[in-house]
Amino acid sequence: MPRRIKRFDQGEPLSPWRENIHEIIFEADTLQGKAFDVFLIVAIILSVIAVMLESVATIRYEYGFWLDLAEWSFTIMFTIEYIFRLICVRKPWLYARSFLGIVDLISILPSYISLMYTGAETLLVIRVLRVLRIFRIFKLAEYLGEAEALIKAMRSSRKKIMVFLYTIFLFVVIFGSIMYLVEGEESGFTSIPRSVYWAIITLTTVGYGDIVPQTNIGQMIAAAVMIMGYAIIAVPTGIYSTELLKAYRETTNTACINCGEEGHDNDAEFCKFCGEKL
Amino acid sequence: MPRRIKRFDQGEPLSPWRENIHEIIFEADTLQGKAFDVFLIVAIILSVIAVMLESVATIRYEYGFWLDLAEWSFTIMFTIEYIFRLICVRKPWLYARSFLGIVDLISILPSYISLMYTGAETLLVIRVLRVLRIFRIFKLAEYLGEAEALIKAMRSSRKKIMVFLYTIFLFVVIFGSIMYLVEGEESGFTSIPRSVYWAIITLTTVGYGDIVPQTNIGQMIAAAVMIMGYAIIAVPTGIYSTELLKAYRETTNTACINCGEEGHDNDAEFCKFCGEKL
Amino acid sequence: MPRRIKRFDQGEPLSPWRENIHEIIFEADTLQGKAFDVFLIVAIILSVIAVMLESVATIRYEYGFWLDLAEWSFTIMFTIEYIFRLICVRKPWLYARSFLGIVDLISILPSYISLMYTGAETLLVIRVLRVLRIFRIFKLAEYLGEAEALIKAMRSSRKKIMVFLYTIFLFVVIFGSIMYLVEGEESGFTSIPRSVYWAIITLTTVGYGDIVPQTNIGQMIAAAVMIMGYAIIAVPTGIYSTELLKAYRETTNTACINCGEEGHDNDAEFCKFCGEKL
Amino acid sequence: MPRRIKRFDQGEPLSPWRENIHEIIFEADTLQGKAFDVFLIVAIILSVIAVMLESVATIRYEYGFWLDLAEWSFTIMFTIEYIFRLICVRKPWLYARSFLGIVDLISILPSYISLMYTGAETLLVIRVLRVLRIFRIFKLAEYLGEAEALIKAMRSSRKKIMVFLYTIFLFVVIFGSIMYLVEGEESGFTSIPRSVYWAIITLTTVGYGDIVPQTNIGQMIAAAVMIMGYAIIAVPTGIYSTELLKAYRETTNTACINCGEEGHDNDAEFCKFCGEKL
Repeated sequence: MPRRIKRFDQGEPLSPWRENIHEIIFEADTLQGKAFDVFLIVAIILSVIAVMLESVATIRYEYGFWLDLAEWSFTIMFTIEYIFRLICVRKPWLYARSFLGIVDLISILPSYISLMYTGAETLLVIRVLRVLRIFRIFKLAEYLGEAEALIKAMRSSRKKIMVFLYTIFLFVVIFGSIMYLVEGEESGFTSIPRSVYWAIITLTTVGYGDIVPQTNIGQMIAAAVMIMGYAIIAVPTGIYSTELLKAYRETTNTACINCGEEGHDNDAEFCKFCGEKL
Repeated sequence: MPRRIKRFDQGEPLSPWRENIHEIIFEADTLQGKAFDVFLIVAIILSVIAVMLESVATIRYEYGFWLDLAEWSFTIMFTIEYIFRLICVRKPWLYARSFLGIVDLISILPSYISLMYTGAETLLVIRVLRVLRIFRIFKLAEYLGEAEALIKAMRSSRKKIMVFLYTIFLFVVIFGSIMYLVEGEESGFTSIPRSVYWAIITLTTVGYGDIVPQTNIGQMIAAAVMIMGYAIIAVPTGIYSTELLKAYRETTNTACINCGEEGHDNDAEFCKFCGEKL
Repeated sequence: MPRRIKRFDQGEPLSPWRENIHEIIFEADTLQGKAFDVFLIVAIILSVIAVMLESVATIRYEYGFWLDLAEWSFTIMFTIEYIFRLICVRKPWLYARSFLGIVDLISILPSYISLMYTGAETLLVIRVLRVLRIFRIFKLAEYLGEAEALIKAMRSSRKKIMVFLYTIFLFVVIFGSIMYLVEGEESGFTSIPRSVYWAIITLTTVGYGDIVPQTNIGQMIAAAVMIMGYAIIAVPTGIYSTELLKAYRETTNTACINCGEEGHDNDAEFCKFCGEKL
Repeated sequence: MPRRIKRFDQGEPLSPWRENIHEIIFEADTLQGKAFDVFLIVAIILSVIAVMLESVATIRYEYGFWLDLAEWSFTIMFTIEYIFRLICVRKPWLYARSFLGIVDLISILPSYISLMYTGAETLLVIRVLRVLRIFRIFKLAEYLGEAEALIKAMRSSRKKIMVFLYTIFLFVVIFGSIMYLVEGEESGFTSIPRSVYWAIITLTTVGYGDIVPQTNIGQMIAAAVMIMGYAIIAVPTGIYSTELLKAYRETTNTACINCGEEGHDNDAEFCKFCGEKL
């Protein structure tokens, strides 16, 4: 995040007042900056809660007006904020295209869209994404670091996971079709897509119970699918654990310039074998 | 636990009789100490069972009186015990504020509260927490050691888990809202909060089946959520496994004589922070 | 298993014919030995299937007589086998008390008991345990080795798992009681034990859906329990993975007599660092 | 895959035109080759979708004719392709017996079978297996490598998993039988097989809720099974993680120049089997 901000803050310096606004809106170092962020988070959370409450019929009938009011005030507030963000950044276009920039935009659009198409305002929950900024307040870097570690491990296990998901896909399609043949209409396996849906419900051990096999042979196949699903959950877990561990090991692969030994921890400042400064 | 006890046992020595009671109530070295602990555990378990049984209508109607009697005798017993604990410890206030001290207190309060507000006695199940003392009897230290290892790993994976939970939170809010739009009232997705509740049920693979998608598109999204939930269970597991393994690799007890820093590896010969010979 | 057999085969030698029977019944080296084992496994599986089929009403009404016949012939057969095992072993009493010896006994008793108490014959499924002998046929040692590795890891993670289970126990009791207070009778939370049962169903992500929270607050608590259950599944997995890895590492902790380096594989015959014979 | 193709491409060279077809059908290096593969994948996916859609009653009634048409054109197309594959490969018989060869065959057969037995066309979904060829297009080797890593870990954990599955099998049979005795007909535990089915549903945490214990004792046993299932999921995961990590530690490709053995660690400088310098 900081890096991204840096990126679209290169270029000619801002006029002092824009510089100030920038300080407040984008940074969390100054007191106003922190205050602004806290205020923003609260506003975001409130607006999301408002959208959620409005979806509850009983509440909508009673407080509909006030919730609409709240929603619109939040929208206008966020719109102004968005404009200011565009103003007080050196490269507005870059910010607008940055992940957070897009989030900022799509979290105000639904309100305006809802003027044409009612119901669209529900999409305002997307605002919840803005809460990502929460990490800005209390030690951001740390959390981002953790997140990066997780994402790094995910990226490096991406291919394995894809192979795994493709296998799952084959499983559910084939078992779904078999069950369609075995169980048929009367058990609720009305079509292959629906049977595949059942296979997914079963393999992932979710087990709604809205579609369940009735015949003996069907239940035997179902049992097989369950045990399969119960056993192969080990695969993604194994993959991810290994990747995380690798990621952790790799960071410890800096060799000592004195004794050349490796395997130092991330926070190591001296070689643990010869005491040489790393 | 032993350390905590130590802490609030500093200060001027106790009079002999208080010393004896202390021996019996707080320590498990002497025969009486052990006997007391065993007796206490049994009493605690019995009292919890009593509370549970009382909640069963049929049993309450038949044995209500005896269960009330039992409950009150246990409460009075534990109250006396609590008072004695306060008396026979050097720093009562410190004990009263210690975790186990608070547990001891809140495990007697509900009975007295129930005199004003009926139903409160159900809270007596909190007494089950007191069973923590069970570890006191058979080799306490060991088990606490194990627990500490687990907690240590949890603490060090705290941030990663928080990032993970926040992602989950985003997932369920957004998918819940989408399902609210897709499925709507008639399928039981009567509001966003309820849809989020469904999303949690599905993502965690609990799958009650009290709310299930009816439309094709809804079932497709549900399938996606299930597979997602099935795959990302790998994340917390991977995190925790790695942390446990790290914890195992580190010898957390050897501190550097120079800088006093801990967390050196088993094979470390020099402090990784100051380069001092270990 | 072989070791156990050895143990109760010490002592004075058997008469030749008993020696022969012993060869056939206990060992799987000779052709007859193998043949006997295969025959035995088939018989065991058939007898278990017979018991299962008999429990199916429709089948019982039609083939009840034949199934009873089969059951009794199997029982008599196994009884004879059991007697022979006792005869052809040097220390019958030791065998009778060994795990497999007890299994052999209790897998014939139910039939005889069923003469007095009908229904007892269902317990004959215990015979399925006898299939353990299956490992005898194809490379036994190997599989036992694997099993031992798994059990070893389980034993060393026993304490951690107990601490974990105790925490789970606290969780479900406390959350169960809370839900009993929050939801009450009309939602099916008719008593604390039943609510605890619900909490277990939810925390373990089984989610039958026979008891589900109806109130908003109840569903919020349920959601919390689900996410908790979804996250803490990481704990036993992490523990067990670590223990398995340790077990694997420990076997590789033989130091080289020449360079003193450790971390050689199980199958290593030479030091991988200096090439010295291990 | 490439290796397999190689295998049945030894022998006398093909005539130029067959060579060309071979280039196009089997390889993905040339432009036509890529184009053909892409076209093939699309055709496969479309044909699978067609089969799925046909299974949906409403769609069948409306577009049945067109779907049949599509299905048959795909079948004929794939038949021609299959014949060409046989023609343009040096050892047709070897290809026909190769995994992909068999898949290619069984993915056209159902249509012809359906002429005799209606309903068989559902088996056409098996065509989904043909999508395996998709890996051919974008960097095949990589993905196969990943897959091989996963399969290698699976193979080496095969025995442990079998021991695990056998234990699971014992569990469900025994607990199923107990529940059959405890719950009996009226709770839906109408037979041992059905009770075993319930045990599998519960142990794997699928929890359909179509069969649930009604008695107190039954629910207690169920709770035990759930917690067991929740805890022992750790076993396969632990096994697999460890195997994956082992696989990662070993550099399976460097063979010793002296004894030709493989499986040395990354940091190995000498062959662990013969002590030869690597």
